Amino acid sequence: MSAIKVVTSILKANDEINSLNKKMLDEKKIYVLNVMSSPGSGKTTILEKIISKLQADIKIAVIEGDPYTSIDAQRIEAKGVPVVQINTGGACHLDANMIKNAMDNLNLNEIELLIVENVGNLVCPAEFDVGEDIKVTVMSTTEGTYKPLKCPLAFEKSGLVILNKIDLVKYTNFDMDEFYKSVKSLNEKAIIFETSCTQDLGLAELCSWLKNKVREKRND
Amino acid sequence: MSAIKVVTSILKANDEINSLNKKMLDEKKIYVLNVMSSPGSGKTTILEKIISKLQADIKIAVIEGDPYTSIDAQRIEAKGVPVVQINTGGACHLDANMIKNAMDNLNLNEIELLIVENVGNLVCPAEFDVGEDIKVTVMSTTEGTYKPLKCPLAFEKSGLVILNKIDLVKYTNFDMDEFYKSVKSLNEKAIIFETSCTQDLGLAELCSWLKNKVREKRND
Repeated sequence: MSAIKVVTSILKANDEINSLNKKMLDEKKIYVLNVMSSPGSGKTTILEKIISKLQADIKIAVIEGDPYTSIDAQRIEAKGVPVVQINTGGACHLDANMIKNAMDNLNLNEIELLIVENVGNLVCPAEFDVGEDIKVTVMSTTEGTYKPLKCPLAFEKSGLVILNKIDLVKYTNFDMDEFYKSVKSLNEKAIIFETSCTQDLGLAELCSWLKNKVREKRND
Repeated sequence: MSAIKVVTSILKANDEINSLNKKMLDEKKIYVLNVMSSPGSGKTTILEKIISKLQADIKIAVIEGDPYTSIDAQRIEAKGVPVVQINTGGACHLDANMIKNAMDNLNLNEIELLIVENVGNLVCPAEFDVGEDIKVTVMSTTEGTYKPLKCPLAFEKSGLVILNKIDLVKYTNFDMDEFYKSVKSLNEKAIIFETSCTQDLGLAELCSWLKNKVREKRND
């Protein structure tokens, strides 16, 4: 099988476009999140909550990745922020070139925080930098304790980890200590927030942290 | 981007090896499941339950796909059935060639049911046939109602869909009618079982169905 070679050549091309994206986004002082997770971890709902809490203070735009549909993009658009949909046609991740094309459809002078919601997949997206300041991995307590060890790359590369559906933890056998230990073993510096969107837990803290990051970049 | 071309050439090579695998497995009258899901849907726990309920009557073996670890394979081995681990080195799916190599490590004369547990990923694995009789998609109620529409290929190609963690549905906003409607719109013939491994719901029905399938193939 020549699969490894193929991946290498795709990744090299991606790195070049990633650098171009990053240069442009840094010039415009736009803070960029690349949000990754398994399907169903609650990414889009977290974004809805972040937008509601921050849009009065910060100009936000969203790039939505999805294999085929625009269901998530419609939800984000309903919050009243600019959104560009990327349908990957079945591909399992976003790459830098897709984000470059999506950026052409946004007014970068009117954005302070750009959120890229990657395709729901905890394996492949972590390999592709798209121009982000920080990768964010969302996982829900219902996905099980060992997810970080089983999909290590996403956690290794994510400066921010959001443990979502914390309200459901009491109905599961999720081991909180083991989870923290696993994440820290992969990525000592990862910042971890625990959230529940149905119970509005941890979201104020998350948004406060995010607001500081956006301000730091603008004042850079 | 040349991504589409790359996928096409990989898929063609895969189809050829898939046919070879299928021929050998049909000759041996081994019924083969290719089990796909998001990470954390409960695939491995379902397999543990299936093995416990069927191993007195049916000779079972398992091929475990995982990006890096052997956590799941160890759980399956503890049930006392032959298991082969495939570590994909970060790749997001199993392909026919990996299964061919794994089959070399199994005594096919001593197997009636071969279960392939794919890498936890609801996007890419559906594109790769590995020699299976049936694809199985597992999703949990905590992943949200719209998963079938957002990851349609897995559901389109799966003869069997298992809706797991049915005991948690009462704590979520999961819409059961919408779920059934979505799955049926993608795949009219899909058989759907609802299961809970913690509450032992639906597993007897699932195992009874599976036992019939194994017997049908042996009597073919």
